[in-house]
Amino acid sequence: MTHQQIAIETFGAASTLRLRDQPARPPGPGEVAIDVKYSGVNFADIQMRLGFYPDAPKRPFVPGYEVSGHVAAVGAGVTGFRAGDAVVAGTYFGGYASQVTIDAAQVFPLPRHLDLESGAALPVNYFTARLALHEMARVRAGDKVLIECATGGVGVLAIQMARALGAEVTGLTTSAHKKPFIEGLGARAFTVEEFKADPALTGYDFILNASGGAEIKPQRARLAITGRMVCIGISSGLKDGKRSFWRIGLAALRTPRISVLKLFDQNSGIYALNALRVLQDPTWVPRLTQSLGEVAELDLRPHVGKVFAASEAAAAHELLQTKGATGKVLLAWS
Amino acid sequence: MTHQQIAIETFGAASTLRLRDQPARPPGPGEVAIDVKYSGVNFADIQMRLGFYPDAPKRPFVPGYEVSGHVAAVGAGVTGFRAGDAVVAGTYFGGYASQVTIDAAQVFPLPRHLDLESGAALPVNYFTARLALHEMARVRAGDKVLIECATGGVGVLAIQMARALGAEVTGLTTSAHKKPFIEGLGARAFTVEEFKADPALTGYDFILNASGGAEIKPQRARLAITGRMVCIGISSGLKDGKRSFWRIGLAALRTPRISVLKLFDQNSGIYALNALRVLQDPTWVPRLTQSLGEVAELDLRPHVGKVFAASEAAAAHELLQTKGATGKVLLAWS
Repeated sequence: MTHQQIAIETFGAASTLRLRDQPARPPGPGEVAIDVKYSGVNFADIQMRLGFYPDAPKRPFVPGYEVSGHVAAVGAGVTGFRAGDAVVAGTYFGGYASQVTIDAAQVFPLPRHLDLESGAALPVNYFTARLALHEMARVRAGDKVLIECATGGVGVLAIQMARALGAEVTGLTTSAHKKPFIEGLGARAFTVEEFKADPALTGYDFILNASGGAEIKPQRARLAITGRMVCIGISSGLKDGKRSFWRIGLAALRTPRISVLKLFDQNSGIYALNALRVLQDPTWVPRLTQSLGEVAELDLRPHVGKVFAASEAAAAHELLQTKGATGKVLLAWS
Repeated sequence: MTHQQIAIETFGAASTLRLRDQPARPPGPGEVAIDVKYSGVNFADIQMRLGFYPDAPKRPFVPGYEVSGHVAAVGAGVTGFRAGDAVVAGTYFGGYASQVTIDAAQVFPLPRHLDLESGAALPVNYFTARLALHEMARVRAGDKVLIECATGGVGVLAIQMARALGAEVTGLTTSAHKKPFIEGLGARAFTVEEFKADPALTGYDFILNASGGAEIKPQRARLAITGRMVCIGISSGLKDGKRSFWRIGLAALRTPRISVLKLFDQNSGIYALNALRVLQDPTWVPRLTQSLGEVAELDLRPHVGKVFAASEAAAAHELLQTKGATGKVLLAWS
């Protein structure tokens, strides 16, 4: 038996991504083999393809953090799954493949209200939103919440989760025509320009910041006393279709250093989250995987943007790289 | 009618504190006049007497953030209190007085399990612990909590509150002989030296840091993934009986600037709290005052160190200034 996978063999343009055949690995004790239907594409995959993602393994390696599909076989001692079960899994590399064999602790039944497409869009975005809202900020009923990246994969789930927790949610977008989409999720919607121009939009108990860089400081001024910001990226260097080392470096330079002495004046807090790095920690993988039970409870629905055939992975990367995320980009295996 | 008060008229040594007579002010609409029995002394009072507390009013002014006593009279429209009621109040300046007249929103019935001494020890320390644990860190059951200042006024309440929330609590002290006191509150106890020497003491979801300065960085390395530190002071500049501008300035210089980019590697957060500044905000005063109901619910008991006659205010300041807080210092009015 063989399966197909997409490895990063050389750093460079999206066209370097190619399908290759590999022998399939049967599941060992405690493992599950999954016939993958969809693999999620993340911006980190593009950074590793370009050669500037610090946590990437040595080349050649198969990128990919998340898959959905059906269980092909289970190893000795696995009692929670049977062949044929629809599942989602967080893979921490190796997800760009038509079959993956991984620890059962990384596998979760497909939430009953989702199809396999939505399932593959879930792990990274949901884990990020969960870590930011539940573990770091600890959002609770009555909180005033601002989601900067309201139309992105994390933001859409974050709005749904914050609403389910009883928070009053405001979402921002760079495009005025996306405001009805945000309002449809139950949040107030403003463009970034409207928000910047209206100083009355202030007093947030929690701000989810995705743009990083120079945006952090003015947004922090909108926090309530005892409020907190969670930073989940530096997309401000990555937004106009001209992403480059230079632009990402500039955004990093503009990312502030926070004086703890000044924090005393502001009576607020700041976190930064690298969700993919949290998944390096073996105690967090089963913990986050189990938290996927909340997805059905709260009726959370991730936002799928576009599905590409796995053979078109280069086009998938180019879309994400030049247009930014307007929903999850997936690779489909036939 | 007159009452006595202690005003800061000139900056300088503790001996400049003197009692003076002032006409008593009858309560206006919505106000309560309190015959004060005890006034709490805070380190900020010493900083203002020395002339380097930025939020202090212009001289001459009466310092003091908290009192306990009995209601002398209530103004029009006040329904919650009657003459003779035992009460505690947060005063935001003006507390060093035998009678205070303040907004009823700043007054709370003396918790039923406390005497007036303990009541006067409550507002500032409890508000600080409440803001740090409940509003900022949002401590919850199962959290691993480290209280650095475990034998101080805030720390003693913080341990009790964290335990009541279901957290697993560890307390630090500079003096080995105080460990049984910490253990008596239901926490594990270590000296600062034992803690520093044992790298296995790590993985804290919440660290309450009181020393500030150079201690912040090594303590942050002990945080769990998604953990948070709340800084409540820079006592590391103030510990050896030789407090001075120079030493406080040095501790401030050693207080780090936190790179948000590095926070991404650490997956953690940091807050700083100036509780006295929060009390400048008119929406927080009634909110915190009402939260005093929790003190009886959770059976919280503040730690009173020493009581001085109000005429001995200079000695009270000298004790706090040279020995550090081993419990609340109070002034008693006869």
